[in-house]
Amino acid sequence: MERVSVRMPGRAYEVCIGPGVLARADELLPALAGAERAFVIADAPVAERYLAALSDGLAGRGLGVVHLGVPEGEEAKSLQVMNALERQLATQVAHRDDPIVALGGGAVGDLAGFVAATYMRGVPFVQVPTTLLSQVDSSVGGKTGINHPLGKNMIGAFYQPQAVIADTSTLNTLPARELSAGLSEVIKHGAIIDPPFFDWIEANIDKLVQKDAVALAYAIKRSCEIKADVVRQDEREGGLRAILNFGHTFGHAIEAGMGYGVWLHGEAVGCGMVMAADLSHRLGFIDDRTNARIAAVVKAAGLPAVAPDLGTSRWLELMEVDKKNEGGQIKFILLKPLGTSVIMPVPQDVLLQTLSACTG
Amino acid sequence: MERVSVRMPGRAYEVCIGPGVLARADELLPALAGAERAFVIADAPVAERYLAALSDGLAGRGLGVVHLGVPEGEEAKSLQVMNALERQLATQVAHRDDPIVALGGGAVGDLAGFVAATYMRGVPFVQVPTTLLSQVDSSVGGKTGINHPLGKNMIGAFYQPQAVIADTSTLNTLPARELSAGLSEVIKHGAIIDPPFFDWIEANIDKLVQKDAVALAYAIKRSCEIKADVVRQDEREGGLRAILNFGHTFGHAIEAGMGYGVWLHGEAVGCGMVMAADLSHRLGFIDDRTNARIAAVVKAAGLPAVAPDLGTSRWLELMEVDKKNEGGQIKFILLKPLGTSVIMPVPQDVLLQTLSACTG
Repeated sequence: MERVSVRMPGRAYEVCIGPGVLARADELLPALAGAERAFVIADAPVAERYLAALSDGLAGRGLGVVHLGVPEGEEAKSLQVMNALERQLATQVAHRDDPIVALGGGAVGDLAGFVAATYMRGVPFVQVPTTLLSQVDSSVGGKTGINHPLGKNMIGAFYQPQAVIADTSTLNTLPARELSAGLSEVIKHGAIIDPPFFDWIEANIDKLVQKDAVALAYAIKRSCEIKADVVRQDEREGGLRAILNFGHTFGHAIEAGMGYGVWLHGEAVGCGMVMAADLSHRLGFIDDRTNARIAAVVKAAGLPAVAPDLGTSRWLELMEVDKKNEGGQIKFILLKPLGTSVIMPVPQDVLLQTLSACTG
Repeated sequence: MERVSVRMPGRAYEVCIGPGVLARADELLPALAGAERAFVIADAPVAERYLAALSDGLAGRGLGVVHLGVPEGEEAKSLQVMNALERQLATQVAHRDDPIVALGGGAVGDLAGFVAATYMRGVPFVQVPTTLLSQVDSSVGGKTGINHPLGKNMIGAFYQPQAVIADTSTLNTLPARELSAGLSEVIKHGAIIDPPFFDWIEANIDKLVQKDAVALAYAIKRSCEIKADVVRQDEREGGLRAILNFGHTFGHAIEAGMGYGVWLHGEAVGCGMVMAADLSHRLGFIDDRTNARIAAVVKAAGLPAVAPDLGTSRWLELMEVDKKNEGGQIKFILLKPLGTSVIMPVPQDVLLQTLSACTG
């Protein structure tokens, strides 16, 4: 088992990574003083697969388990689902010491985290991510929230978990497309901050795609370490943390432009990184070879490297409403060089060249 | 003008107290980098009275003002109103640098604070409390939230403002009953922590009831200082902060038992303090004279000192569901002696004696 310590202002917690850790909640969870029941939020297929093992672990800590069901996927992140969960917690008289446990992918984690952040002004929160994307990305950082008809993640909070239990065995049944989507964020962490890790990803991308257990555990660990390091310095996204959005300005435009759910988030980010690298290259920040390396590793991860043709005006419109763009100016996270990021507006003509070169 | 500095982990802000400060937002607000518009949440009567002056001050800082209307009183703290506000913010493309301003009493402050805490995972928040209760109580502490059909303040967050502007001129038009309700929390701060302040309140209670401007400004300042001191040590109510709930276990039972809104919160707390003092006295923690002093100052403040007869079993039921009582055990905040608080369960027979002695 690998462990990553995440130290946030006022709270520290551990990410436990490895095969079978899900059933070891009894030994891996920190003290949860006063807790009587754990409220586990999970969709039906995930609950069927993992709830029994998790419940055994929680029972070993003397915790009763109450399962709160939610719809599958992004649909769970709605106000209606959130209200239904709050009603169930209130009806069952959940106490402020009782933990809320997110069992599932990123959507369940975002939703359950926001419920934990706001029920009785905050109750203990434990994450048990069961997809690669949620293990490498949403298990560190404290972003929680739900969608609004007018915007993704529009309502939410920053809220840190008490612990994250990332069981790599859950990846055995993960569809290839979702594995690739998770690898997208792994590649991102290497590209923006850690050139040796990027080299390692390149050398091991086939193993990762083939779900080699040791390679996956290392990739998750190193990703969590990198992200924890960034987030510790900037919990609320005042500055540094924005570099974690590398590839996301393009990626969010693809997701919104195609209709949420058509491309997976990780797929859109993978393609977005290829576009951000192209833009960095056009501005002279990275050389030909580096640009090609990024596109190649994205492709080798099974991710799309060619963007959908949304039309130039739609592209610009979608990127302008991206909520990270305060003051109406589109800023991009660029590589300068590989392993270092800069955040800056770019000349419109260069942006148009990238849009033209990268769309198919 | 009086100023109180509130230092919370990771954030410090000032409470500015005095006549006319509401119109001085231009000089009193801290830097709000990137802000273009202020979204001012207020009900219609409050907006009619104070929005123009506040807007002038905000305009002096180059901020456009958008007024978002809400129902009067506790009705504002509903999920429906919150959703309507979020929809308006999203429709108007409020940016994450744009502040949300609460203009009004405690209900508007709680609601607006929770909207600020959760819109885009948190935007800047400014409080402009216009009642004595909100000036002495909710302007320090960061508690925000809305009500749920199954419980008051059941959904919320801890979220600190950037600044609090407490204009004592707004108290000139405050109904006597609401002034008394605010004095309840002032008395509480003296009773639980600061005997000299309690003496001062006793000596000045008539001036306070008559809205003497200098006396009110001092009472607000000292209350904010005391509360800030407690909250700084315990933002999330792990321990010490619970003493601020002196009188509240009885008080919440009165509010719920009579139906929310029949007694004002401050009235219920005033009566609750008389009951908590009676209980402290029966347990030998305070003497006869101290017990009588507390009842006398509560009465002199224009507050009810005799509790409604809810029936013993209903009393116990209402206190048991109070959310501060983890583990099913009723704990009370008691004086031992005046100026010092203890939190402990009490023998049921003594509690029944207090219920019997204090109800009319």
